[in-house]
Amino acid sequence: MRIVEIRERTAPIASSIANAYIDFSKMTLSLVAVVTDVKRDGRTVVGYGFNSNGRYGQGGLIRERFAPRVLEAEPKALLNDAGDNLDPDRIWAALMKNEKPGGHGERSVAVGTIDMAVWDAVAKIAGKPLFRLLAERHRREANPRVFVYAAGGYYYPGKGVEQLRAEMRSYLDRGYTVVKMKIGNSLDEDRPRIEAVLKELDGKARLAVDANGRLSLEEAIGYAKMLRDYPLFWYEEAGDPLDFTLQAALAEFYPGPMATGENLFSHQDARNLLRYGGMRPDRDWLQFDCALSYGLCEYQRTLAALDVAGWSRSRCIPHGGHQMSLNIAAGLGLGGNESYPDLFQPYGGFPDSVRVSDSHIVMPELPGIGFEGKSDLIKVMRELAK
Amino acid sequence: MRIVEIRERTAPIASSIANAYIDFSKMTLSLVAVVTDVKRDGRTVVGYGFNSNGRYGQGGLIRERFAPRVLEAEPKALLNDAGDNLDPDRIWAALMKNEKPGGHGERSVAVGTIDMAVWDAVAKIAGKPLFRLLAERHRREANPRVFVYAAGGYYYPGKGVEQLRAEMRSYLDRGYTVVKMKIGNSLDEDRPRIEAVLKELDGKARLAVDANGRLSLEEAIGYAKMLRDYPLFWYEEAGDPLDFTLQAALAEFYPGPMATGENLFSHQDARNLLRYGGMRPDRDWLQFDCALSYGLCEYQRTLAALDVAGWSRSRCIPHGGHQMSLNIAAGLGLGGNESYPDLFQPYGGFPDSVRVSDSHIVMPELPGIGFEGKSDLIKVMRELAK
Repeated sequence: MRIVEIRERTAPIASSIANAYIDFSKMTLSLVAVVTDVKRDGRTVVGYGFNSNGRYGQGGLIRERFAPRVLEAEPKALLNDAGDNLDPDRIWAALMKNEKPGGHGERSVAVGTIDMAVWDAVAKIAGKPLFRLLAERHRREANPRVFVYAAGGYYYPGKGVEQLRAEMRSYLDRGYTVVKMKIGNSLDEDRPRIEAVLKELDGKARLAVDANGRLSLEEAIGYAKMLRDYPLFWYEEAGDPLDFTLQAALAEFYPGPMATGENLFSHQDARNLLRYGGMRPDRDWLQFDCALSYGLCEYQRTLAALDVAGWSRSRCIPHGGHQMSLNIAAGLGLGGNESYPDLFQPYGGFPDSVRVSDSHIVMPELPGIGFEGKSDLIKVMRELAK
Repeated sequence: MRIVEIRERTAPIASSIANAYIDFSKMTLSLVAVVTDVKRDGRTVVGYGFNSNGRYGQGGLIRERFAPRVLEAEPKALLNDAGDNLDPDRIWAALMKNEKPGGHGERSVAVGTIDMAVWDAVAKIAGKPLFRLLAERHRREANPRVFVYAAGGYYYPGKGVEQLRAEMRSYLDRGYTVVKMKIGNSLDEDRPRIEAVLKELDGKARLAVDANGRLSLEEAIGYAKMLRDYPLFWYEEAGDPLDFTLQAALAEFYPGPMATGENLFSHQDARNLLRYGGMRPDRDWLQFDCALSYGLCEYQRTLAALDVAGWSRSRCIPHGGHQMSLNIAAGLGLGGNESYPDLFQPYGGFPDSVRVSDSHIVMPELPGIGFEGKSDLIKVMRELAK
């Protein structure tokens, strides 16, 4: 049993959207296929992975640095003790050979993308949905019903309040009771946007707002004073993701729930948020995204750091809207997952059979991560592998 | 006036050395040439840059993401207000367009390498040594005499205490009065190594030790208890570079000087070390390396964060052993610079005319960073540019 090949393709995820920080029109994504020599149901087992939005594809690093380390390793050294499956942690160790500590960016995406494909292969070889495999390994009960919320509300050139209301209305119509919109352009622009959306939601759904890390301390406090007038689901990523002092100071001005963490890419960075960010374990939310952060092997270390710090993993609702985090949520008891109903297709979203109801989905019982259940996605994936 | 081309070549810096974390035999380096349309003394002005050791070359990121942004920008938008030179901050902003906050690794190396070449070009266009240009811009007096120490003392396969002593002796013979060796394999192995080196130095030089971030809190405390028996120059990077709580706890056990920071790659990360790492401004040392950390444009923001935190920039002795940091030290008043007398050639080290005396060098008056004064280095650089 061995990994025969690791393929990568960098694809645009072109979109006319803009958040408060970046223009998505030049954004790319790495799709990875980890091809094994294992057969299941007459088919070669191939694990698939991709990086979630917001960071760029990592074709160079994957092809030049990380994939070769796995392919050059002794195949037996990458198997579990029983020799009947790949061992994700041993593969992870091979990926990170000769890497220095610190500096967690870009390579964390390259490794996270490969790691997703490895876990997909491992669950397929085991013939189980990944969330069931994870629950077994951690001696937990899986819960296939997962909370999801609809992320959108981006600034588009020329997009007015009416279009924003219509967008939010469409999320309600599709079964969401928590929706999210971008903020951060200015208080004067954003207050009417927020009030219009709250009016549209009419108490049938809760609203989260996301500043994408662009606000200074003074601006973040200004927003906190405005936002605390409303009953928001959360106030997300006000300042620079590494400005833990800013985050801690905000709690003095904002009693409601806050959320952050999507731009922290290692368990060390996540731990620093818990140590220094003044986040409150009874109300705040942690959004670390394994696909950008060295994958599930590292995410398990992040969850261990939460335990040490006295945080429940139910406070985690990852960024990214991919099925990998859905599996982690269902298998390891996270609080839910982001979803982008209209964006980042075909990569984001759910298997075709899945419907959102009361902002929850139920995981289908598909081997692996579940990509085979999403027809537009698996088509693209199989093109890479064939 | 414009940048005509940005060339990159990834080269091995193969070496049989190993520190406590990585094997250098597979390490690579990016060499960059920023070619302008400016002529000085009948020659096209080309700025050169490279990344220092410890992180990999970034050919993929430079060619696919960062160089194109500069070349696609409106050339006038990259000039200073007078239009008579390139503007490094405007070029930096073009490089970082559409990059999200956080995740400071790899891309910080790609940008740092290009930024070095840009500053080299800017000083050459101005016809001045970079350190003089920097001093002028910051309204400071340049000091061309810079403290340097000899970094070495690596673990090699089969290297015994006698070879280590001979190595350290050779640094003394070459004018150094501060030398550095690696530690971290084990207390039992390292105590005799340290005692042997101190005996060899015989009071004629001070010894710094470097654990390269590999120690757990418990191990780091164990080392602190052993090391405080000796009068060391510093105890460097005991634990993970992002484990600021470990660093702060160590001060309880180690009253002597400590040093860290080479694996923090942004001003935000550097600021977190000052905020949370318990570093003591009267004795500890900061080793941020601009070549790995988005370059001098970012390093100036790091120095501003030092000012806010009440730190003198004379506490900075950067990692990396390159002439860029020598210029920053001479121009902006840093405490000195690392050097590797026997390693990372031809990239590291000094212009041919420079001699070390009493662990200080005097900067020659060469336009730019000074690469043209180092014959083996400029030969490699000109090959890339021609």
